[in-house]
Amino acid sequence: MTNHNNSRCVIAIDAMGGDFAPQNAVVGAIEAFHEAKDFDLFLVGKKEEIEKVIKNNKLVFNSDFIVNADQVIDMQDHPAETMKTKPNSSMAVGTKLVKDGKAHAFVSAGNTGAMVINSIFGMGRIDGVSRPTLTAPLPNSKDGFTFLADVGAFVDSKPQHIFEFAMLSSIFLREIYEIKKPRVGLLNVGSEDSKGYKLILETSELLKNSDLNFIGNVEGNDIFKGTADLIVCDGFIGNILLKFAESMPSFLKAAIKNYADKSFSNKLKVAPFKFPPTKAGFKESLSKADADNVGGLPLLGVNGISIIGHGSSSTLAIKNMVLSAREMHNKNLITKIKEELSQYAKQK
Amino acid sequence: MTNHNNSRCVIAIDAMGGDFAPQNAVVGAIEAFHEAKDFDLFLVGKKEEIEKVIKNNKLVFNSDFIVNADQVIDMQDHPAETMKTKPNSSMAVGTKLVKDGKAHAFVSAGNTGAMVINSIFGMGRIDGVSRPTLTAPLPNSKDGFTFLADVGAFVDSKPQHIFEFAMLSSIFLREIYEIKKPRVGLLNVGSEDSKGYKLILETSELLKNSDLNFIGNVEGNDIFKGTADLIVCDGFIGNILLKFAESMPSFLKAAIKNYADKSFSNKLKVAPFKFPPTKAGFKESLSKADADNVGGLPLLGVNGISIIGHGSSSTLAIKNMVLSAREMHNKNLITKIKEELSQYAKQK
Repeated sequence: MTNHNNSRCVIAIDAMGGDFAPQNAVVGAIEAFHEAKDFDLFLVGKKEEIEKVIKNNKLVFNSDFIVNADQVIDMQDHPAETMKTKPNSSMAVGTKLVKDGKAHAFVSAGNTGAMVINSIFGMGRIDGVSRPTLTAPLPNSKDGFTFLADVGAFVDSKPQHIFEFAMLSSIFLREIYEIKKPRVGLLNVGSEDSKGYKLILETSELLKNSDLNFIGNVEGNDIFKGTADLIVCDGFIGNILLKFAESMPSFLKAAIKNYADKSFSNKLKVAPFKFPPTKAGFKESLSKADADNVGGLPLLGVNGISIIGHGSSSTLAIKNMVLSAREMHNKNLITKIKEELSQYAKQK
Repeated sequence: MTNHNNSRCVIAIDAMGGDFAPQNAVVGAIEAFHEAKDFDLFLVGKKEEIEKVIKNNKLVFNSDFIVNADQVIDMQDHPAETMKTKPNSSMAVGTKLVKDGKAHAFVSAGNTGAMVINSIFGMGRIDGVSRPTLTAPLPNSKDGFTFLADVGAFVDSKPQHIFEFAMLSSIFLREIYEIKKPRVGLLNVGSEDSKGYKLILETSELLKNSDLNFIGNVEGNDIFKGTADLIVCDGFIGNILLKFAESMPSFLKAAIKNYADKSFSNKLKVAPFKFPPTKAGFKESLSKADADNVGGLPLLGVNGISIIGHGSSSTLAIKNMVLSAREMHNKNLITKIKEELSQYAKQK
């Protein structure tokens, strides 16, 4: 990875975000900081609590880089209301650091909806974006990823919104995953052009008349197949699909256990699943898109790098979120998005 | 299973429906017929072709029960147009047998959309039903099924439609699966009452004010968890979820292979997956909701038993479709639906 950007990367992390905050957020972020060495890190949140985690874990960190924020947004908070009720939350303070040019990125494993709203109002949207999008990688049979956008930044999309999800995510895949011309599929109930309803038919027209590498309609079974690099859909269905996919490993475990419990001969048949190396191998086979490995999901379309992690983020997941933010900065993602959207606006 | 119905059950099968028709349709249906012995069977389709399959497979079947239909609907046919372009299709003739009281059920593994349209126009809807629904079982971690409705009979539902899916499918689960008060969940992006958009909020109100056992909003990860017996949603998302779930076994196979191909030590770790009994055990663990075992999906809300199977239906799947139709007849499903909907109409 080459650094295309002259300014030293600065990343702010929500020290209070996630089920295991501030412990995992602080430890994971400082690990990334010491490993990469080439960026500055702000820890945003309740200063005393952050200092306690640093002390308890015997970490080395300059306390000048702790930015105090008195309020904490929790998972029960109504996203839209947090802007009013918690103006001094770690999310509000963190996104403001980006807005004020003091940081390039803000990452959080806190309340997803609140992070979406705080990022949009805190950082602002890039010109030409009506709705930002959360893009998520799902594993596919071709040993790669099928990205899904939107996975829940917003529900009840209009054709223009889904078209923007496709545009933003295509740039992301090109710049970060080095896929030259990402194949974009529109999620539908059939591959035929006439399938679907008004929203889908109109979105399809927008995609067809664009410079995107639109391959047409794709179906539910195309996600795992890897027919497209990117599948676009409304955030309602994307969010449901993502949560459904994430619950697959626990279901598999339960299904094998239920089968084994039925008879002794069944138990013998699936006994190798309990053999530690096999168990580990099976888990690793499916771990490609795990929260630990992926780190977090980018919120694309806001005027700065915003990465949102799973509430249950481990230290490793947090570390990878911070390293992803660093990569997006080094590869100039936000500038590329701005350039391409302004060019698109001129063509129109 | 007791026969609650005085009339001898008569089932018609679309001999031309499915990728392997007429072979699988004819063989599977006749197998069910000889096994159960207590119902009459009509084979609907091109008489000569059906007779050839009977002869080639050395089956015993009275040719008086072959009902000729000159036209065949294929997978490429536009569902709505088949009513006009193919008025003598096996689907049109089969559903007419039900309408005319000559059969209680019609089952087909042909074009799903065409079967929905032909069933609605051929058999008619039950009073009080604005949209019938296709209900599908998905396996869950509790070793049971989570039913999903609608899985694609219609897209772009209104609140009243989704409410009807819940009502029809609840009766189905009570009568056929003997679940006294099926727990009904509304598929959403969060469990909180305020989540979702207009369609969801309005549907939620209808469900809350009904006699159904509505447990509130459920999320994508609740499908496998088994939080609800029945999850209702628009047919667009239901269809995509069903196809996504069906593609899971092939993905797992590919993921394990991709992992094994990466290194020799990986290969050793997952080697037991190739051990035939283990391979079979793993497959069986996941086979609960397989097309073979489930047979087909009921189209609920039409005035007769209509069962729609997978295009790729095996002989076993066809046999199970026919036996399901027989069970629905013997348990008086259509009468129960009519009674409950008329009672509901009076209450309103």
